[in-house]
Amino acid sequence: MSATRPPDPALVLADPMGLALDLARAAAATGEVPVGAVITDAGGRPLAACANRTETDHDPTAHAEILAIRAACARRGDARLPDCTLWVTLEPCPMCASAIVHARLARVIFGAYDPKGGAVDHGVRLFAHPGCLHRPEVIGGMAESAAATLLRGFFQALR
Amino acid sequence: MSATRPPDPALVLADPMGLALDLARAAAATGEVPVGAVITDAGGRPLAACANRTETDHDPTAHAEILAIRAACARRGDARLPDCTLWVTLEPCPMCASAIVHARLARVIFGAYDPKGGAVDHGVRLFAHPGCLHRPEVIGGMAESAAATLLRGFFQALR
Repeated sequence: MSATRPPDPALVLADPMGLALDLARAAAATGEVPVGAVITDAGGRPLAACANRTETDHDPTAHAEILAIRAACARRGDARLPDCTLWVTLEPCPMCASAIVHARLARVIFGAYDPKGGAVDHGVRLFAHPGCLHRPEVIGGMAESAAATLLRGFFQALR
Repeated sequence: MSATRPPDPALVLADPMGLALDLARAAAATGEVPVGAVITDAGGRPLAACANRTETDHDPTAHAEILAIRAACARRGDARLPDCTLWVTLEPCPMCASAIVHARLARVIFGAYDPKGGAVDHGVRLFAHPGCLHRPEVIGGMAESAAATLLRGFFQALR
C-alpha cells in the first residue's frame, strides 16, 4: 500500500503498526525522516495511511500524523474522529499531539519514544496539561525496537 | 484580497494585522471561528494570507496559521521561513506554536490573548519550554481590542 493511495476501507488491518513501519521505511528511501502513521476506525478498518513528507512537499507541517488526520477527516467529511485510533511509529511532537486533541481521537498508539521532540511522555506532555481539552488513551512503546532501529539507521546514514 | 488568492508579492503591506483582521471578519461570515493570519518576508512583502477553514474543509488542522505556513513554504519551495514574520489575530494554540517552531519563523505578532487555548503566553507556553528548539521573537496584544471584539461577537451570535 503506498503512502498516497488511500487504504481499502473494507479491509480490517491485522497489524496497523506494521503498516505504519512499512510506510516509514518507504519514506526513508526517499530521504524523509522515517515516520509512518495509520488511522483506524472503531471496527479496525483503515481510514488513512501516511508517511512523513516534510522534505518532499517543502511543508514543515507534513508530519505523518497531520497528513493521516487530514486524510481521515477528508474521507469522513468530518473534522472530528472520536471513534478512531492513531498508530504512529514515533512519539508525536507538540504540533501533532495538539492536532490529535483538535481531532478528538480516542486513542494514540506510538512506537519509539522521543525524549527530544516528543510531547506525550516528554517535553510539554500536552495531554497531561491541566488545560488540555481532550485526553486520548495512550499506549507508548509498541514495536518500539523496530521503530527506533529504523530512525537510528536513517540518522547514522546521514552522517 | 480573498483567503484563497495569494497576495501580490510586489506589494509591501502597510498593515499586515489589518489584513489578518479583514480575513478573520470574512471567515466569520462563512461560519468559521474568526482568525486570520498573514506571513511577510524580511522586506514586508506578503507571502501568504489565510483565514481559519476548519469547518469549511472538515480539517481540524486548518487553522489560519497552519494554512499560512503551508502556503508561504509552498511559494518559497522551502520548509523553513527564518526571515519571516507571522501576523495572526489570536494567540496560537499548541499545534500552531509548534508549527511556527518547525518553520523557524523569526517573529510572531498576535492580536487577542487566548487564556484557554493559547500556547504562547498561556497553557504549555511552548516557546518558553526548556526543550524548545527555536524561539521566535513574540509580540502579543497588537490590535487586541479589534481581534477580541470580533471573536466575542462571533461566539455571542452562536448562542
